[in-house]
Amino acid sequence: MHFELTKDFLDNLIEIIEKKDDKKAAEIMAEMRAADIAEMYNNLNIDQAKYLYLLIEDREKAADVLAELDDNDRTRFLKALPDDIIASKFIDHMDSDDAADVIADLPGERQGEVLQKIKDIDQAGDIVDLLSYDEDTAGGLMGKEIITVNINDDVEEAIAEIRKQVDEVDDIYYVYVVDDDYILKGTISLTKLLLAAKGTKIKDIYNDDVIYVKADMKAEEVANLSDKYDLVALPVVDEIGRLLGRITFDDLVDVMREEAEKDYQMMSGISEDVEHTDKVWKLTRARLPWLLVGLGGEIIGSKVLAGYEIQLENHAALAFFLPLIAAMGGNSGVQSASIVVQGLANGSISLESTFKKVIKEVSVAFINGIVCAAILFAYNFFFSDSFALTVTVSTALFSVIMFASLFGTFVPLALHKLKIDPAIATGPFITTSNDIFGLIIYMSIGGVLFAIL
Amino acid sequence: MHFELTKDFLDNLIEIIEKKDDKKAAEIMAEMRAADIAEMYNNLNIDQAKYLYLLIEDREKAADVLAELDDNDRTRFLKALPDDIIASKFIDHMDSDDAADVIADLPGERQGEVLQKIKDIDQAGDIVDLLSYDEDTAGGLMGKEIITVNINDDVEEAIAEIRKQVDEVDDIYYVYVVDDDYILKGTISLTKLLLAAKGTKIKDIYNDDVIYVKADMKAEEVANLSDKYDLVALPVVDEIGRLLGRITFDDLVDVMREEAEKDYQMMSGISEDVEHTDKVWKLTRARLPWLLVGLGGEIIGSKVLAGYEIQLENHAALAFFLPLIAAMGGNSGVQSASIVVQGLANGSISLESTFKKVIKEVSVAFINGIVCAAILFAYNFFFSDSFALTVTVSTALFSVIMFASLFGTFVPLALHKLKIDPAIATGPFITTSNDIFGLIIYMSIGGVLFAIL
Repeated sequence: MHFELTKDFLDNLIEIIEKKDDKKAAEIMAEMRAADIAEMYNNLNIDQAKYLYLLIEDREKAADVLAELDDNDRTRFLKALPDDIIASKFIDHMDSDDAADVIADLPGERQGEVLQKIKDIDQAGDIVDLLSYDEDTAGGLMGKEIITVNINDDVEEAIAEIRKQVDEVDDIYYVYVVDDDYILKGTISLTKLLLAAKGTKIKDIYNDDVIYVKADMKAEEVANLSDKYDLVALPVVDEIGRLLGRITFDDLVDVMREEAEKDYQMMSGISEDVEHTDKVWKLTRARLPWLLVGLGGEIIGSKVLAGYEIQLENHAALAFFLPLIAAMGGNSGVQSASIVVQGLANGSISLESTFKKVIKEVSVAFINGIVCAAILFAYNFFFSDSFALTVTVSTALFSVIMFASLFGTFVPLALHKLKIDPAIATGPFITTSNDIFGLIIYMSIGGVLFAIL
Repeated sequence: MHFELTKDFLDNLIEIIEKKDDKKAAEIMAEMRAADIAEMYNNLNIDQAKYLYLLIEDREKAADVLAELDDNDRTRFLKALPDDIIASKFIDHMDSDDAADVIADLPGERQGEVLQKIKDIDQAGDIVDLLSYDEDTAGGLMGKEIITVNINDDVEEAIAEIRKQVDEVDDIYYVYVVDDDYILKGTISLTKLLLAAKGTKIKDIYNDDVIYVKADMKAEEVANLSDKYDLVALPVVDEIGRLLGRITFDDLVDVMREEAEKDYQMMSGISEDVEHTDKVWKLTRARLPWLLVGLGGEIIGSKVLAGYEIQLENHAALAFFLPLIAAMGGNSGVQSASIVVQGLANGSISLESTFKKVIKEVSVAFINGIVCAAILFAYNFFFSDSFALTVTVSTALFSVIMFASLFGTFVPLALHKLKIDPAIATGPFITTSNDIFGLIIYMSIGGVLFAIL
């Protein structure tokens, strides 16, 4: 079964740490899985964590723990460890992609020092190769641990070859078939090898319909691709088709999750990757910037309204609907923007023309605007004394919904064109802009209608 | 390489369909992958889609296409097909979990009819078994296609057993080890079997540390578990530990993505799963309800303000900051709520006590409130004539940020306790409530301060 971190367990463990009961602590570490140990990290201080981690006897597990820690925790943890422990206890036993991530987390001057202390020279070489790729590309996600067989081998030769390579690779999802120049030709499953008659040539039974990516493909695109085709691993090739490595599903799931979380945080007006378990200072740092953007925008809004002071003095009832107009503009704008942002994120938006998108958005906004304006009209018609106010508020609401919906559609498309993350458009920026435009629309309509009605 | 759907390709294909060029169309279908054919669906009408799909010669591929379609498209497509085509062309060649999903999409009265037309009686039996599980549980996600070996076998017997079972299973991620009662004991990898010396007993080399789930575990929890431990497949057992099936990573990735999209849509005030490619009517139906909730709330807000009519008439400048106060309350509330919602979604929130969460939230809100209020105070101090207004607006802003942050923390926690999806708290509901409370706080403070200053 799986492990659940409880308060009792944690209290007991901290007591053991404080008593420095090495034997008992090592026993507990031996029983726990790497992901569970990593999860516990957040609830321990750095000395407690270091004490426990150095008692992990299984070096593969120790390496996995380091790989499972999230970036901030890992940076903090690495800072507390000497170079040779990092190299010998952790890096030597990690998959090359995780090892490269760890090295990349170290400050520049330490990277070389740790690399030189790695005993396995092949591993050190793989890491240096991997560090050359941008971390947001296929190359930055891939590991070097792959199993390959030559297309000219027969089944027995291939199995012998696999036996030689298998020590390095934790999970063989696909065996890759390459030619003499190491150009990727296809895949073959272990089952097929197991079932094939003796002497069968690989070239007669391998699967040549393989989906691969180039090393410079963006991580997000790779994740979309693997999701679409349900791939458990994706081979990565260089410009001329030579096999470089593979990306496994777990790393792609992480990319997908991070993208989704980033978009979610952007919409909630949070500028950094934070969790409720983070410290007050980090939470504040993530939340205050967008609040200040909103504040700045709304101060401009107050300035705009100050320009209509006389109108507001003469018709105080206009003020009653200021928050309504602002809020409805914000809501409509966020709806439109979020649909565009999701379409851009999953790559489905390209086929439809901008013109068609705008026509559709206009139609939706029109229906929403008419319905909302009609309801508000009916409400004011029965409950308000001023016909001018009734007409003003409904006309403004309709206009603001139309405007905000179109603005919410255009802004993320424009940001995307400018290579800026379109998700910004779903945050306080668009709500605040819509607030200001909405107020101008409202007060202008009010100015005209109160004069003529 | 992979396929990209272009407008040219689509135009060409539609021309072929209109000419009824069966041979050419079948050729194109033979070249395309299932996921690409499914993706194309949105750009074809039902007759065009049906024409193409019935020309897919490879039955496995035809089945995969149906499995890849999203729920709405599939329901529409199934409606256009006769029972025996569904049974023989699709269901017979699908994995049991996908087949059960398809049957579940059919209207009640058709389900039995299609089930009876399935030729493979084992498949029909598996589907009936799977239909008994709630679709949001581990049982609803699992497939029956598993490879098992008996713990008492030796390596040769196990390989012979695997050869017998392998036809049914597309991807063998793990070979499951069971005892005579079919109780799950552990796993063994194909590589280990391949490398083991002749005569080795399974019980001496299998891995007994297996993570499994019970059939009634919630889908979201299963997805979190597989994500945490990077599992490519998870075995599902019944109450007494008998192996029932397995869930593969692709289905769990779908669960994760759907959950993330649902939370995202909830926050954007969209009540249904929509994409920008959907029809105007569907988009409106998804967007209008939350707009109406917002409208209703803001009408109440206008009513509240109407209660302060005299105050607004005497001090029109108070109106200038109404949108600011409302917006900042909304922004702070959404920030707090979204952090809680994400913590609840990934299950990390349970360990921290509610008291500690509230203390932390109060601290963050306090800093944010003080900073924003100070900036607004400085602005008004220099640019406004009224000291009473300056003090009112800043005091109200501070209070509103404090209130909204706490409200945003409590509401999702309360919803979670009441077994209602806490993500509702991030939508227009909380912004609207915060608007109303914010206005009351603002006008009350204004009433007091304008009287005494």
